Amino acid sequence: MSDTAPLFNRVAFIGMGLIGSSLARALTEYGIARTVVCADRSKEVCVKAMELGIVEMATTEVEVALDGADLVVLATPVGSFAEVGERIGPHLKPGTIVTDVGSVKQAVLRDVGPNLPDGVHLIPGHPVAGTEHSGPENGFASLFQGRWCILTPPTGANRDAVERVTELWRRVGSNVEIMEAAHHDRVLAITSHLPHLIAYTIVGTASDLEEDTKSEVIKFSAGGFRDFTRIAASDPVMWRDVFLNNREAVLEILQRFTEDLTALQRAIRWGEGQQLQDTFTKTRAIRRGIIDAKQA
Amino acid sequence: MSDTAPLFNRVAFIGMGLIGSSLARALTEYGIARTVVCADRSKEVCVKAMELGIVEMATTEVEVALDGADLVVLATPVGSFAEVGERIGPHLKPGTIVTDVGSVKQAVLRDVGPNLPDGVHLIPGHPVAGTEHSGPENGFASLFQGRWCILTPPTGANRDAVERVTELWRRVGSNVEIMEAAHHDRVLAITSHLPHLIAYTIVGTASDLEEDTKSEVIKFSAGGFRDFTRIAASDPVMWRDVFLNNREAVLEILQRFTEDLTALQRAIRWGEGQQLQDTFTKTRAIRRGIIDAKQA
Repeated sequence: MSDTAPLFNRVAFIGMGLIGSSLARALTEYGIARTVVCADRSKEVCVKAMELGIVEMATTEVEVALDGADLVVLATPVGSFAEVGERIGPHLKPGTIVTDVGSVKQAVLRDVGPNLPDGVHLIPGHPVAGTEHSGPENGFASLFQGRWCILTPPTGANRDAVERVTELWRRVGSNVEIMEAAHHDRVLAITSHLPHLIAYTIVGTASDLEEDTKSEVIKFSAGGFRDFTRIAASDPVMWRDVFLNNREAVLEILQRFTEDLTALQRAIRWGEGQQLQDTFTKTRAIRRGIIDAKQA
Repeated sequence: MSDTAPLFNRVAFIGMGLIGSSLARALTEYGIARTVVCADRSKEVCVKAMELGIVEMATTEVEVALDGADLVVLATPVGSFAEVGERIGPHLKPGTIVTDVGSVKQAVLRDVGPNLPDGVHLIPGHPVAGTEHSGPENGFASLFQGRWCILTPPTGANRDAVERVTELWRRVGSNVEIMEAAHHDRVLAITSHLPHLIAYTIVGTASDLEEDTKSEVIKFSAGGFRDFTRIAASDPVMWRDVFLNNREAVLEILQRFTEDLTALQRAIRWGEGQQLQDTFTKTRAIRRGIIDAKQA
């Protein structure tokens, strides 16, 4: 297969938010798909996607979007996957590839897998990329460049389907890693889910303060707080679904975090400066690793 | 006083790290001081400050740096302030202004105040600006532009001294706010100290993971984690001293944070999606406030 020939004839997106619209743009701009269409339950989003020229056809009826698609990309919040799976299953022809862009991966195998007919290939995916903005108007084709995309094909997945989805992500500029869904969910609980939960919490704590203190918190947010507010501006429904669907891994890492925080709290209370300094020093190694890995 | 005439004849910095060296550069570049000198207990730092042309004279002997200074800027970690105060007190002439750039302010009044002779004006200050880097080589004159600087003069402080320190910060591009030291310490506990503590904790939790998981955490850090690692790369000694010297305010806001986190943990465990979504939605208002206040 030539590097410039389209990989897919017709790609149907279910859901046209930040990630869906970014990937849709990239598939068109980089010539990866001949035709890109979408379904979204919001008519407003459909109009926007058409106006912006992101897709050639947009519809609120999922079934219509599937017609003739050789790749279907689920890009709705993970909590909708069971329902979406039920709706799309009966309309998919053998040979169709179904993938997704969700932040949890065991739930995809659990909720979508059983709804797909024989001969349809489910290759779940998670592009580790994004911004704090939502909606199709905020997407952009270069979002995935230099980022990782993790694929979690189930045991016995069709090798050609895995290869084609891998090639798709490579062509939009990502590095592809293949791992088990359970392992993905554990690693991302640390690198993404816990950070979001913590950021939402601290900004929530601040928003419960008296009004005059709150306005000062906003004023002097450059001291560290504003970085948390950016993370905590992410889509609430998407994140609700992430936590509900990666419960065990999130609760496990949260427990470790709480123990570590309690230890630091105790060190502050009893004036144990050396312990604080040691902890604050060892964290620098991780930062150096991220800079060395060019993920900073 | 003309806007272009120097405000001070000779400014002596005690400590030449990121903040000290940035302010020293700004005072020279913007013509705010005729002469800038520094003392630092590290000979290496003194050499660096001279090599980089940040100061006209650098010395490891505090007393030498003070000679003829009409402004003294304390820019060492807050934990050293009592000792620094004791050392500089006997060498200061009436009319000298002493200020600082520390992240806690009650401790300055407590540790430096009693060591200064009559007629010396203590005007504590806190520029809410910085980067995750340390040392004089990482400073830059424009660090304070568009940022806030909070001054916490004690009751009965000399008005002319307050005015001159205010004007200094205005000339380096900052907006100046005057408030009580205790109030400063409460507000900054939320906007800066707690965020740093949380970031140090989560990066510490990650660095305790098994080696292979840790390398994956680094690899997939773009999902939120890397923002925390940047904050957690800040200077360990500076931050140790912040927590030891703002204990009550930090412990109080940490308690609120822990309660809020526990509530979200419970919502995840019991699958209470609406509560998660509500919390994740209300935090967006604070982000909008920060964007509107042009502090994003």
